Amino acid sequence: MDRILLSHGSGGTMMHKLIREHFAPKFDLKSFNDSAVLHGIKKGKLAFTTDSYVVSPIFFPGGNIGDLAVYGTINDLSMVGAQPLYITAGFILEEGFQFEDLKKILSSMSIAAEKAGVKIVAGDTKVVNKGKADGIFINTSGIGIIENRIDISPSNVKPGDKIILSGPIGNHGISVIGERNGISFNPPVLSDTAPLNSLVKEMLKITKKINAMRDPTRGGLATTLKEIALDSGYCIFIEEDSIPVPSGVKGACELLGLDPLYVANEGILVAIVSPDVSDKLINVMKRHSLAKDARIIGEVRKSPEGMVLLKTSIGGTRIVEMLSGDQLPRIC
Amino acid sequence: MDRILLSHGSGGTMMHKLIREHFAPKFDLKSFNDSAVLHGIKKGKLAFTTDSYVVSPIFFPGGNIGDLAVYGTINDLSMVGAQPLYITAGFILEEGFQFEDLKKILSSMSIAAEKAGVKIVAGDTKVVNKGKADGIFINTSGIGIIENRIDISPSNVKPGDKIILSGPIGNHGISVIGERNGISFNPPVLSDTAPLNSLVKEMLKITKKINAMRDPTRGGLATTLKEIALDSGYCIFIEEDSIPVPSGVKGACELLGLDPLYVANEGILVAIVSPDVSDKLINVMKRHSLAKDARIIGEVRKSPEGMVLLKTSIGGTRIVEMLSGDQLPRIC
Repeated sequence: MDRILLSHGSGGTMMHKLIREHFAPKFDLKSFNDSAVLHGIKKGKLAFTTDSYVVSPIFFPGGNIGDLAVYGTINDLSMVGAQPLYITAGFILEEGFQFEDLKKILSSMSIAAEKAGVKIVAGDTKVVNKGKADGIFINTSGIGIIENRIDISPSNVKPGDKIILSGPIGNHGISVIGERNGISFNPPVLSDTAPLNSLVKEMLKITKKINAMRDPTRGGLATTLKEIALDSGYCIFIEEDSIPVPSGVKGACELLGLDPLYVANEGILVAIVSPDVSDKLINVMKRHSLAKDARIIGEVRKSPEGMVLLKTSIGGTRIVEMLSGDQLPRIC
Repeated sequence: MDRILLSHGSGGTMMHKLIREHFAPKFDLKSFNDSAVLHGIKKGKLAFTTDSYVVSPIFFPGGNIGDLAVYGTINDLSMVGAQPLYITAGFILEEGFQFEDLKKILSSMSIAAEKAGVKIVAGDTKVVNKGKADGIFINTSGIGIIENRIDISPSNVKPGDKIILSGPIGNHGISVIGERNGISFNPPVLSDTAPLNSLVKEMLKITKKINAMRDPTRGGLATTLKEIALDSGYCIFIEEDSIPVPSGVKGACELLGLDPLYVANEGILVAIVSPDVSDKLINVMKRHSLAKDARIIGEVRKSPEGMVLLKTSIGGTRIVEMLSGDQLPRIC
């Protein structure tokens, strides 16, 4: 048997076999209870998040839907300063999905969880008829603990704050779009999918004065900065020349008519920090393998309120809006 | 605009509008952060669970995919004795899905959460191309707190324990299958989808000696009892005559060639309890609106190990196995 059947989702013997043979060995499922019971949770603030992954294609240069789903939820928790602890995984499989592909994806999830130091403690599998889904969709939810002193929220952002970007933009989106369209790039463009929790941990050792933090995924850096501008009520002013765009991403964007500012990322972060700690933070970040290119790309200004302004390479200033339309569906 | 477009899932302006106008008013989303930050979590044991819902059709007599998704996760938490607190909701929408249906589903989720006393604190929306999903899939994940004295696990089950069933079987599965096939029953069969947390709370006030608890969903009562038999290593002995099967369910099962023991339920529970507390529990349960028909349906025996035996109405004994095959796909 090399394909998923409807009976794998029926709740009966076939599903139990699937879970025992394929899911349980890869995850930290303790029992056949539907809920994981977690001991020793410390008193404090808890972060709780969810994300569904429908990326197409499911395998792309640098990753697949499995590690993307684990890292994406780890990163959502990390962005509020939480230490990610536990993850659940819900699978929607299309009848006929290849077992070989499922095994690869589960292995990637297991390796990703171990790499990031989190446990996958509960799961769920549903199967829908052929033609009623697209191979595999994965939902991951996660919880993490936030130290009481940490309070990361756009409402803390103040004029004068520096905007730090941890690395180059556009790699994830271009790797997926390239794979989807059968285009390969030279140099190759690999997804940046990676767990940001250890980087954030290092940053929070240096200072608690991180006022806002986001990972610019769907909608890209532009949309993320616009969200922060709207949520904080201030102006985000950035300089185009300071934003690293890899040559492969630049070339692909020109070819495909895309703006790298709107292309999804899965392994970088934007932090809005007090100016008195920005240099110290950059120094610490540069020593981390995921943020060698960390740099200040701009600052928070009092006005125009809620706007993102970009100083272009040729010296002009343009207004940056959120992504509009559907130029990049199913990127994560 | 009355339908979901791909751009509603792109991460940009359309998605923000969808979240602000439709999701945020119905849920307890505090900010545009991807993670909810939850304060005042007490030290103790935490329960964490996830479930994806792919039920077809999405509206059925007695409920829809929305309240089913909320109650299902509440019930999974309740079955380990947790008090459900917070829920996340992840949506996968098919391009072209009717806004009208989405609104109805979100309203049901909101009402369901309020009825059960839980908050929906974080969400996610993805949109896939027409033909790549089936209208709407919903994942809910949930967390709840377990009092330290509570320890519900099949490993606590002992020979002599009584098996309590809280209500009649088969209503959910038959209501969905009937709707799917355009059959109506007289008397009508309504899904039993309901939140079991308040019933469990009343039960735990009386005794902590609940050794195992499960809600018999996919695979029905038979599969759930077989799971308990395997996990505990003892024999589950039940009497057919003691299991309430509504006349509508009985008739539909005869018509469709189904065994009610294998039909899914969404608002009943099975509890394995010490014989010295079973009568007290039944009394308390009968006073709750969701367990008026609560009764003892059998007992745990030492052997044959891992087996479920059913004493039939005509006096014979048959072996009950798990559901095999795919007779009832997409029931939840």
